[in-house]
Amino acid sequence: MQSIRDRIDRRVLTPGSRLPSVRAMAEAIGFSKSTVVEAYDRLAADGVIRSRPGAGFYVSAPLAPLSLDRIGAPAEREVDPLWMLRQSLMGPSEALKPGCGWLPDDWLAGGPIRKALRAVARSDADGPLTQYASLLGSPPLRALLARRLDDQGVGAAPDQILLTESSTHALDLVSRFLLEPGDTVLVDDPCYFNFLALLRAHRANVVGIPMTPTGPDTTAFAAALAEHRPRFYLTNSASHNPTGATLSAATAHRLLKLAELHDLVIVEDDVFADFEDTPAPRLAAFDGLDRVIRIGSFSKSVTAAIRCGHIAARPDWIEALADLRIATSMSGNPLSAEVLHTVLTDGGYRRHIEGVRTRLARARARTIERLRKIGITPWIEPAAGLFIWARLPDGLDAAKLARAALADDIVLAPGNVFSTNGMWSDYLRFNVTMSDDDRVSAFLARACG
Amino acid sequence: MQSIRDRIDRRVLTPGSRLPSVRAMAEAIGFSKSTVVEAYDRLAADGVIRSRPGAGFYVSAPLAPLSLDRIGAPAEREVDPLWMLRQSLMGPSEALKPGCGWLPDDWLAGGPIRKALRAVARSDADGPLTQYASLLGSPPLRALLARRLDDQGVGAAPDQILLTESSTHALDLVSRFLLEPGDTVLVDDPCYFNFLALLRAHRANVVGIPMTPTGPDTTAFAAALAEHRPRFYLTNSASHNPTGATLSAATAHRLLKLAELHDLVIVEDDVFADFEDTPAPRLAAFDGLDRVIRIGSFSKSVTAAIRCGHIAARPDWIEALADLRIATSMSGNPLSAEVLHTVLTDGGYRRHIEGVRTRLARARARTIERLRKIGITPWIEPAAGLFIWARLPDGLDAAKLARAALADDIVLAPGNVFSTNGMWSDYLRFNVTMSDDDRVSAFLARACG
Repeated sequence: MQSIRDRIDRRVLTPGSRLPSVRAMAEAIGFSKSTVVEAYDRLAADGVIRSRPGAGFYVSAPLAPLSLDRIGAPAEREVDPLWMLRQSLMGPSEALKPGCGWLPDDWLAGGPIRKALRAVARSDADGPLTQYASLLGSPPLRALLARRLDDQGVGAAPDQILLTESSTHALDLVSRFLLEPGDTVLVDDPCYFNFLALLRAHRANVVGIPMTPTGPDTTAFAAALAEHRPRFYLTNSASHNPTGATLSAATAHRLLKLAELHDLVIVEDDVFADFEDTPAPRLAAFDGLDRVIRIGSFSKSVTAAIRCGHIAARPDWIEALADLRIATSMSGNPLSAEVLHTVLTDGGYRRHIEGVRTRLARARARTIERLRKIGITPWIEPAAGLFIWARLPDGLDAAKLARAALADDIVLAPGNVFSTNGMWSDYLRFNVTMSDDDRVSAFLARACG
Repeated sequence: MQSIRDRIDRRVLTPGSRLPSVRAMAEAIGFSKSTVVEAYDRLAADGVIRSRPGAGFYVSAPLAPLSLDRIGAPAEREVDPLWMLRQSLMGPSEALKPGCGWLPDDWLAGGPIRKALRAVARSDADGPLTQYASLLGSPPLRALLARRLDDQGVGAAPDQILLTESSTHALDLVSRFLLEPGDTVLVDDPCYFNFLALLRAHRANVVGIPMTPTGPDTTAFAAALAEHRPRFYLTNSASHNPTGATLSAATAHRLLKLAELHDLVIVEDDVFADFEDTPAPRLAAFDGLDRVIRIGSFSKSVTAAIRCGHIAARPDWIEALADLRIATSMSGNPLSAEVLHTVLTDGGYRRHIEGVRTRLARARARTIERLRKIGITPWIEPAAGLFIWARLPDGLDAAKLARAALADDIVLAPGNVFSTNGMWSDYLRFNVTMSDDDRVSAFLARACG
């Protein structure tokens, strides 16, 4: 009981998260199953956890306040997806962040954004500067997104597009629309760690499908569909986060056939679309937005400071998602939409993004070279994108390494936070725009030496 | 069964909403309870609804798509909170909206916002224009909010403040933190209709406390605490939406004593703070952010196009809310925070808001005069704010009137959408900035004549 209480107090188990099954807990702590059952029952009687019939035990949302001094400093928290997110967002400004998921300041579209802000400041009417957004969000931006989707082979009318604050917010709305607590969601293993934090907030049962260089393992995918009857499969396309894998047409075709057979919805996050030189297959394009919901944003390619994501889906689903959106956050941000639309329609954007792609290719090559020299082995050499997924020399644990790196003001992304079951513990994800750096190489060489 | 299916198809019953109890449904449709039980069981077997032990039946989140042609045009939807929100956000641009909850374009801070956009465009560093927000959001804006809270008698350190997209988003995070499906929340009756839509999205059991001109009825409040053991009480301060009531110090004191006795959390939405001439008592100030969570935004007084709300609460709760925020929407919007901070620290803001208050007082007086002439009676004459809550002549139904008004391109806010149990059906909420208008008066005079 005390051990579970401690984990809740230290927020290793967060409000709403599911406790391990009685059997798993008994194995983990070396007590009998009946002892664990008794502990769970007593904690439930105390209101610390709650039982959900057929779905196990969950940590209660606390009315009793969490005690900050027992939570400890951020560095003492478990190395989990929220630890990773906090390190990425909070680290000191002089910290190096090869573990973070975005471009450095000077790679992003600062110039075009300044120009757009001046243009918006000159606009005639006050309405766009002062009023709530329309129901689905800025019509010109949605029209532009529809044209861009069409370029990818995804046919979507502008009223099949709902603007959101971000792609994370888009996924949150979709999860609210599709999930009930205890429902199963399939993800890639490894996958973007915030998918795991978000799905945990929805109390989903998350099942990972092993990733291959051409997409998820379709045999494991078929088995998981049969066993778990999942509500949706969540993946990201273009350049997979964190592996850099590229979905092949054959895998896409097989996934969609399986999805149809089991009436599975697929949520495809396309946030890295603009980093591709050659477009990879898209599930949304193959499927035609029948059972695929496509989400995206420009946080990676334009700016993360102006939040604006979107969902493209069947019109009837967009209708329901719009209701959820106004109920839970009222309205979008017309200023963000206006600035983003101005940046994207400015001739400078194409040059900006072509420059980013060229620089990314060079940075990928240099990062791979540096890693190999240290004895850290890339899983593949990705065709596009921001990330290298790479294995440490035998016997090294990435979470321990990431914790040690904080002392050198280096934020690393250890493999376990990308995994549903703590696999990939000897892998790290490297952001190539922040890894071609002597301080980073020196730390890694020492750690691996 | 067909009747319930129809209600789900037409989205009168939305995904996740609770079905009426067997007894209430039996009475409503005139069948026996056993027939209703059988219908519910069959719908559950079909997966259309789901049973939650001890908490009744809920509409399943649909995998089967909703059919748009059966939903019908927006005007044919039930007159409920989401109807109201859609009408407010969607109506044609030439529509008059005495039912909406915001100031007209030219009352808001268009000028100061243009100036702020130009200032931000000139800033030295690219980071604020391109990077994710820090964990809690812009430090200068949080410091400014802490000073403003201090002016209201609410002591809050900047790290007790979390920036959000809006006050609705703030309430959504708080609800995620505190609520489990089936938990009870107390609200004022009437209350801001979006509270009801949001709490329904959280599957809360919402109990209304009758409103009086000095705050909620404390006898009913005490009885509801004893009967329902609610998770929190949600109210809005300064100038109550929709009634314009002002909380008295005596009522505030009694509410907090009761809250302490029952270990109740209070969520106080202070979004109309800047419209007051003389500050009314604040629960957050009396309590000192011990059990009160204060949320707010500048959507009403500065702009709704630049989304930025905030939560002030105990440090340990802010810590947990920040985790929820990054898991479900990753990061705030630094551009919004920067523009808002610039507007609020510009000398022009004080003049702007003083001008708004003067115009509001005049518009309130003129609206009351117009309404009385037509035979529509204000519940009270509010001391501040945007709204007049007023009763139609005997025998008139506000929801019917609101539906008819759409044909004249007039969006009205009927009383039933503000109520937990459809009470106040002969009341309308008038936004005084859009009600002093001959077309509105002519429609109302015809309807009431």
